[in-house]
Amino acid sequence: MKIIIIGGVAGGMSAATRLRRLDETAEIVVFERGPYVSFANCGLPYYVGGVIEDRNSLLLQTPDSLSARFRLDVRVNQEVVRIDRAAKTVQVTDVLDGTTATEGYDVLILAAGATAGQALPGHGIPVRSLRTVDDVDAITSVLDSVGIGARAVVVGAGFIGLEAIENLVTRGVAVTLVQRGPRPLSPLDPEMAGAVLDTLLLHGVDVRVNSTVADVRDGRVHLDDGSVIETDLIVEARGVRPDTDLARSAGLTIGATGGITVDEYQRTNDPSIYAVGDAVEKTDAIDAAATLVTMAGLANRHGRTAADAIAGVADPSVPALGTAIVGLFGLTIAMVGWSETRLAASGRPHRVVHTHPSSHAGYYPGAEQMSMKLLIDSQTDAILGAQIVGGAGVDKRIDVIATAMAGGLTASQLSRLELAYAPQFGSAKDAVNMAGYVADNLATGATRSIQWHELDDATTSGATLVDVRSADEFARGAIPGAINLPLDDIRARIAELPDTPLVVHCQVGQRGHTAARLLTQLGRHVRNLDGGYRTWLAGTAATGNFADTSPAQTYA
Amino acid sequence: MKIIIIGGVAGGMSAATRLRRLDETAEIVVFERGPYVSFANCGLPYYVGGVIEDRNSLLLQTPDSLSARFRLDVRVNQEVVRIDRAAKTVQVTDVLDGTTATEGYDVLILAAGATAGQALPGHGIPVRSLRTVDDVDAITSVLDSVGIGARAVVVGAGFIGLEAIENLVTRGVAVTLVQRGPRPLSPLDPEMAGAVLDTLLLHGVDVRVNSTVADVRDGRVHLDDGSVIETDLIVEARGVRPDTDLARSAGLTIGATGGITVDEYQRTNDPSIYAVGDAVEKTDAIDAAATLVTMAGLANRHGRTAADAIAGVADPSVPALGTAIVGLFGLTIAMVGWSETRLAASGRPHRVVHTHPSSHAGYYPGAEQMSMKLLIDSQTDAILGAQIVGGAGVDKRIDVIATAMAGGLTASQLSRLELAYAPQFGSAKDAVNMAGYVADNLATGATRSIQWHELDDATTSGATLVDVRSADEFARGAIPGAINLPLDDIRARIAELPDTPLVVHCQVGQRGHTAARLLTQLGRHVRNLDGGYRTWLAGTAATGNFADTSPAQTYA
Repeated sequence: MKIIIIGGVAGGMSAATRLRRLDETAEIVVFERGPYVSFANCGLPYYVGGVIEDRNSLLLQTPDSLSARFRLDVRVNQEVVRIDRAAKTVQVTDVLDGTTATEGYDVLILAAGATAGQALPGHGIPVRSLRTVDDVDAITSVLDSVGIGARAVVVGAGFIGLEAIENLVTRGVAVTLVQRGPRPLSPLDPEMAGAVLDTLLLHGVDVRVNSTVADVRDGRVHLDDGSVIETDLIVEARGVRPDTDLARSAGLTIGATGGITVDEYQRTNDPSIYAVGDAVEKTDAIDAAATLVTMAGLANRHGRTAADAIAGVADPSVPALGTAIVGLFGLTIAMVGWSETRLAASGRPHRVVHTHPSSHAGYYPGAEQMSMKLLIDSQTDAILGAQIVGGAGVDKRIDVIATAMAGGLTASQLSRLELAYAPQFGSAKDAVNMAGYVADNLATGATRSIQWHELDDATTSGATLVDVRSADEFARGAIPGAINLPLDDIRARIAELPDTPLVVHCQVGQRGHTAARLLTQLGRHVRNLDGGYRTWLAGTAATGNFADTSPAQTYA
Repeated sequence: MKIIIIGGVAGGMSAATRLRRLDETAEIVVFERGPYVSFANCGLPYYVGGVIEDRNSLLLQTPDSLSARFRLDVRVNQEVVRIDRAAKTVQVTDVLDGTTATEGYDVLILAAGATAGQALPGHGIPVRSLRTVDDVDAITSVLDSVGIGARAVVVGAGFIGLEAIENLVTRGVAVTLVQRGPRPLSPLDPEMAGAVLDTLLLHGVDVRVNSTVADVRDGRVHLDDGSVIETDLIVEARGVRPDTDLARSAGLTIGATGGITVDEYQRTNDPSIYAVGDAVEKTDAIDAAATLVTMAGLANRHGRTAADAIAGVADPSVPALGTAIVGLFGLTIAMVGWSETRLAASGRPHRVVHTHPSSHAGYYPGAEQMSMKLLIDSQTDAILGAQIVGGAGVDKRIDVIATAMAGGLTASQLSRLELAYAPQFGSAKDAVNMAGYVADNLATGATRSIQWHELDDATTSGATLVDVRSADEFARGAIPGAINLPLDDIRARIAELPDTPLVVHCQVGQRGHTAARLLTQLGRHVRNLDGGYRTWLAGTAATGNFADTSPAQTYA
């Protein structure tokens, strides 16, 4: 059997090595259009920043090492330009000398990945994405030649955009971020995104939201609001799109998402052609619909699935949760599943839990506070998603929640997880447990909550907002219209509360819960402001300053 | 309704506060025999070491604060000495003045915790466990009065023993560890425990294994091997036992484990009496048998379960996985479920997977290697346990595995988890995924493995041991009797291999797997040495030096 694999990075190379381990006799040929295979694409930004110092450490394998170990025939600088499905051949062009050859296959695996889409015309300014070793070589070359005072415009504030910004700033480059949407890292709900913007500003990034590049001319970037930015380099980090040109021209089915359609064994509509990685549709774990998730872990996993299927081992593909994480100057932002924005847009009934737990026991030094958001199916208590922003311990909690989702645990069951506890690692009631307890209280009806964006409606409808924090906390900043009745005084002073529905709140939601339970039992209609003052403040700040309808804004 | 709670720390206080949130009208009285309630017992060792500087930060609540917020009637220095189940009363002695009173209850919750058991007679040397604020006050007072050159003997190398050692050493105390068993931290299997001993020795601890204290006289500790240790302090950290005196004298059922027997709602055989925490039997998540697990998280969780049941909310107790973690001078040791030792002793069929993964992508600076062990039901592929020893990222991986166990994921399914990946946080194929891949290869029969302790039998039976590492690696140290045939040379040199069954191995198991797959397909009978040279070395070193039959040994 002869297998041709197009694309020699994550998904393609996982498929190739797994295939060899399953089938010593197969002929396996890998065509890679670039000069490198199996490079550390997720490490590229950190080489720009000098965090990864040795360029060789990005190159995990070479054609020679893959030949020696796995008897793979890896051919770099070879672009497959056409697939003849009837003849079962591919036409390959040598990128260096332009010569062309034809190669037959029994089975074909497409692993071409994603492209940055239509590149901006630089008109003299270097424009680069951050997807290949060539990209980082070009970027570092420009920055080296400019030297001190180098400037860069980063277009797009997704995962790669943020990593590019961090590393350019680390290198001493003056960075302007141009972002089409109202906030950096658009998959985050607005009240979770404030820390991202704050962190960018703190590190001197010139942030232009609600902005697009209208033109590049005279060696300058012109934005759609008329402002002009001088720069030495443009880093193109807008959303990628699946690289499907080859698949499309071969008549393979492309889904509505724009990715190649495959079955649960990564097979396209041609039974001899498989496809894996960023060019391919995944099945969304939340709604089982086709979706695009461009993550290395899924590419690797699905490469293995395809290899297994080709070798006769049936191991269906895992659906995609979209677990993701990014570091930004010590801030960690992680997410899994769907956001509230997406759930609301899809009309799916959901509950929301905001907490602000510590990374470990508060009495042990060095604990860092994080903000955690849990999205829950209001009918089944299933976990639909989570977002966590903070420092230490964010990565752990998102992985625990992703694992709970994979295991089908409900949100309430998070309270029952037996997580490892010593005071430097967590809390006896860990952050994830606590979110589960809040979810449990909502599921059983022990507490009713209200979201920060629902507060105005509630008070307009006559509810009284009661701030149960201490008088000192209240004096340092409070929600307009709130009256202050500290939790510990409620029993004595309940007569002071007007005879209206009540919304109680504290700083993060925990005292508010105790107040809500107390007042409920005293006969009052109470809701607890979810996530407390902190979440309300973050939400109103984000939407007040960054509403989708607002004009372009500059933070410099 | 009047509820009396005996014991005012983790389980008791969780029950009290939850009860109040569910029932504003109940009368809730908490009797605590010590002077403090709701203190940070897991923080106590770190106060001794000065890591936690402020003694007040250990005292999370006071009777006054609990009265103000939760209307709890908390009475410290009050020891309940008798329960009259017929009359539904308890007899309480004031620890300070000896006066006695009787108090009636509708419902009683026992949360007395565990005791250190029979204390060593100090004969002039202070002997203290590390369970109360009084203990740390006494310990720090002794150490302060001795000043520079203070010496301590720590008896027992479980979790608290290790934490005591770390903190005493941090404080500058010369520490001798006296440990009955052959290794520190006996729940770890031998090949996982080597790093614990190494770390203790590296930090100057005088380690005496296979030793017990025979006598304390003339101001010296005499061990059973005749050696004598001069010391200023003895820290008693031997295994604790459930504090069941009160329950036993009241005729409540005590299980074979020595803990109070309760149902899934934490109810004893007296329907008016509940019990939670370290004094109580848990249900083992692996075999559903009664077990003792003395962890704060379970105490809290079960306190809530009892409160719920009393308030009419049915939320059955979660079984105990025994998830645990301890830090030791930067080394992190974590475990969940059963050990191989325990599985073997119980005769339960199991598979074992050893890996040595990195905390994050190897190409990103700062990755730390950990040793991971997974115990798997060989019939169902269920995860039965895990042990992880290393640095960064150990806490995350044990929590992910504990969550997978709670969610009923199989070991193979660990390979399918979609964990958050950026190079500073993990790997595209995370450590947990990789262990899952190994498990999957065992489950499907793609690879056969052999454990380090089975190697002698295999070679005695005629198998040839083939070291597939490089010649350089082989030269730096190899398993006696192994022949060296580097992985990349196997195809060319297979004729050199004798016609016997083969055991292949590399450094950590990964190249061994590729070699095993290759040789299997070339028609050979092959097993891969699980965990490679590293695990073999750790296992033989541990059992060679520390066999249970060996005499007492001193490492100084």
